[in-house]
Amino acid sequence: MKIELSKPFFVNTVTIIGIGLIGGSLARALKKNNAVGQIIAYDNNEDALAQAKALGVADIVTTDIEMAVKDSDIIIMATPITVMGTLMKEMMPFLKEDAIVSDVGSTKGSVIRTITEAVGFLPKRFVPAHPIAGTEKHGVENSFAELFEKRRTLIIPHINNNHTAVTTLTKMWEAVGSIVEEMGVVHHDQVLAATSHIPHLLAYSTVDTLANLDDRAEIFRFAAGGFRDFTRISTSNPEMWTDICLENREAVLEVLRAYLKKIALVEEALDKEDRETILEVFSRAKHARDNFYHEP
Amino acid sequence: MKIELSKPFFVNTVTIIGIGLIGGSLARALKKNNAVGQIIAYDNNEDALAQAKALGVADIVTTDIEMAVKDSDIIIMATPITVMGTLMKEMMPFLKEDAIVSDVGSTKGSVIRTITEAVGFLPKRFVPAHPIAGTEKHGVENSFAELFEKRRTLIIPHINNNHTAVTTLTKMWEAVGSIVEEMGVVHHDQVLAATSHIPHLLAYSTVDTLANLDDRAEIFRFAAGGFRDFTRISTSNPEMWTDICLENREAVLEVLRAYLKKIALVEEALDKEDRETILEVFSRAKHARDNFYHEP
Repeated sequence: MKIELSKPFFVNTVTIIGIGLIGGSLARALKKNNAVGQIIAYDNNEDALAQAKALGVADIVTTDIEMAVKDSDIIIMATPITVMGTLMKEMMPFLKEDAIVSDVGSTKGSVIRTITEAVGFLPKRFVPAHPIAGTEKHGVENSFAELFEKRRTLIIPHINNNHTAVTTLTKMWEAVGSIVEEMGVVHHDQVLAATSHIPHLLAYSTVDTLANLDDRAEIFRFAAGGFRDFTRISTSNPEMWTDICLENREAVLEVLRAYLKKIALVEEALDKEDRETILEVFSRAKHARDNFYHEP
Repeated sequence: MKIELSKPFFVNTVTIIGIGLIGGSLARALKKNNAVGQIIAYDNNEDALAQAKALGVADIVTTDIEMAVKDSDIIIMATPITVMGTLMKEMMPFLKEDAIVSDVGSTKGSVIRTITEAVGFLPKRFVPAHPIAGTEKHGVENSFAELFEKRRTLIIPHINNNHTAVTTLTKMWEAVGSIVEEMGVVHHDQVLAATSHIPHLLAYSTVDTLANLDDRAEIFRFAAGGFRDFTRISTSNPEMWTDICLENREAVLEVLRAYLKKIALVEEALDKEDRETILEVFSRAKHARDNFYHEP
């Protein structure tokens, strides 16, 4: 009797399109876990490519899309969401027959829309995905192999996807330590609006409000640890987060409007010295944060 | 010739009224730095007192205000702000002639008002102070001696204060590692509204908004590190923060209204797909956070 041990995941060639924090960390993680033969990095920023090569994050670097994808088994778009449609269209003629294309975008409805529009249909080889991991830093120089460990990656299969592509991509993310779950596109965009896009929008808006006050220098000087944590995400890339909020506009607006109502309620309660209402909001929030979400 | 070395700060007896996170940490810090002969803890919570005694945070514990203050050199009120007026009035008849009374309240205008109202005048021995330090936890069991190290303590002298009292209190806070600065009361309340009270109010309001959404369970499940940091302060004591916001109502309302305008601006820009306005807000915020405030 032969016992089949499940083989560890291995793929010959992975191409990372856009070698920044996320793309660079995925490359490092695949290498660290012996899950890949070689990494090809494609970027239009030659400095980033040179750095990726020097750091050993990528084996081959190129600004030529054909060279980047023609021998590749899995291509991951880790670029701004707004360019993914064009990129997909450009690479399509050069892809191997069984190559899988995926992405790491923070919104999924808009990625699917932009690719469908650019290509004319939604390719069955394209599997939308979203690793829920990151830091407020960016660039390949800040990438690290452990970024995805114990973090969730959401895979958003669409009706055209072939099963093998979804399974392979799932195994790839599991190979770098991620916990993979499938989710529908609308649901994904709602959940991410609430947990990620809105917090960034609010953190930026808070800091910009304070930065316009007369005593802004003192404000930052006397800020303590709570403020530091609360506003840390406002040091993230503003271009990227502007695009994410716009790309997921409808879901973000829905949560933002609910939030505006809440703030207006608290403002009114404060104005009227209505202690009960404020305490209710604060207590419900503490209860929710304590119960739904435990510190790791 | 005799060279006078500046003597390290030492005081015979310090009384902590309200032995929680802040009071407990101050007691521990004074002991650790050999700056105190004995610590007396007064509280109306007998469990807290028993714990303070068991942990070695206090040498003597009592629920009798006369016993608590009659031999004490420095009395620190580390209670909710709302009870400080009554407390001050109760302890006044028992204080030694040169005893100094201070507090650690997060608002200063309201502390001065409540004490003036309760006592009938603002005692010259009372020096308002505010150590800008804390965690989202509470209770003497979470107190630690290093809480104030390299943190600022603001002293808010008033016109009746005698100079010696202000100097002694300054030296006490310096002895536990704090950086002491003086500040006017109105200015203090404005700066703290912006850096501390508003962030707490907004974090509570954000979490309460999300906790009311249909998919709240998933929302907390898929939240990543940025969300965790952004909402950590919403696990702070809701009663305490309700009172702080109410006690500093005017300054908090002023910042809150500026913030509401900002959020409405971003909402409108998002609705109109006005990328430029959103990018402007986000970029200004990142710039302010990066430049005014460097991570330690």
